[in-house]
Amino acid sequence: MKLYGAPNPAPNPRRVRIFIAEKQIDLPEIPVDLRARAHKSAEHLARNPVGQVPTLVLDDGRSLSESVAICRYLDVLHPEPPLFGGDAFAAAGIDQWIRRVEFVLTTPVGMFWRHAHPFTASLLTQYRDFGESNRAAAMTAMRWFDRQLGNREWLADDFSMADICLLTSIDFAAWIGLARPDDCPDLAAWHARASARPSAKA
Amino acid sequence: MKLYGAPNPAPNPRRVRIFIAEKQIDLPEIPVDLRARAHKSAEHLARNPVGQVPTLVLDDGRSLSESVAICRYLDVLHPEPPLFGGDAFAAAGIDQWIRRVEFVLTTPVGMFWRHAHPFTASLLTQYRDFGESNRAAAMTAMRWFDRQLGNREWLADDFSMADICLLTSIDFAAWIGLARPDDCPDLAAWHARASARPSAKA
Repeated sequence: MKLYGAPNPAPNPRRVRIFIAEKQIDLPEIPVDLRARAHKSAEHLARNPVGQVPTLVLDDGRSLSESVAICRYLDVLHPEPPLFGGDAFAAAGIDQWIRRVEFVLTTPVGMFWRHAHPFTASLLTQYRDFGESNRAAAMTAMRWFDRQLGNREWLADDFSMADICLLTSIDFAAWIGLARPDDCPDLAAWHARASARPSAKA
Repeated sequence: MKLYGAPNPAPNPRRVRIFIAEKQIDLPEIPVDLRARAHKSAEHLARNPVGQVPTLVLDDGRSLSESVAICRYLDVLHPEPPLFGGDAFAAAGIDQWIRRVEFVLTTPVGMFWRHAHPFTASLLTQYRDFGESNRAAAMTAMRWFDRQLGNREWLADDFSMADICLLTSIDFAAWIGLARPDDCPDLAAWHARASARPSAKA
């Protein structure tokens, strides 16, 4: 198998690297040069028609994209430790939390990056007022996760793919100028726990 | 189990109803009155802290939200016909397509609804220029799916949850004024096939 990705701060390749580190899978990442727009090259579009990373190419030539889908596939090949849940309800609950991370937090963070960040201004048509409005939306989202976590250790019963998604979103948000608000003690404690895992260095 | 939802045109409850119809599961939907904002009531927020439908409440009181997560749970209880894939690669491939539907198409459709549609104007702060820009983004997305489908029957090898997500997004898009462009013959053929299934009446 070949895993195509990109180094930090790109958040989606990092999800797969953290997952691989948690599972102790030996699968080095082949970097795709995002600044050179190599993810939009014909070569990469043949692997992933959306033109994004990460993308996994199997030995038989079939390819798979989308960070969570790639991890779901690797999870079947390497079931321990379980990161997508043990039974049906746990698995559905983790999927629920992955989706909440993406729709509640990752979406406004992505819209801020897309429409308000100087880095993307030269690449895309930006709607700056809308983009800036996502700063408040991202802060509201982080406060919502703070309340949802309360004194729980992880989003689901155990550390899971949902925590990997939340960690990569929060760290990418901080990198683009959307730092966690100070009034989120439970989210801060969760972030410290997640960041202390060796996999977080990925 | 109790399934809370809302009638059409709400797209997410429809996903679960189509899934249930495909599986021939006997699980009637309890409507939550969205126009009366009952989804934001304390009673419903106790079931789903995001304040959305659909939400599934199990007999033991545990609840589960997010349409795809609910269907993933029901799929384990009712495995036939498989709608989330038979083997690991098929399952990951369907997850990949679900995510592409949501990020490539459902997101701009949702942003148009949220920021440009008259219905939501009284409920939310709209960024109209940004909202209107999603009309072109949605058309680009539909043309992308037209090319991806080509002469294939379904997004994955067989009819799956990914087709349910694409159907509900396209039908909701049409309802809010984002009709499929005329130059998408393969998407039109796919839409006719999906709409001809008895489950599409849900």
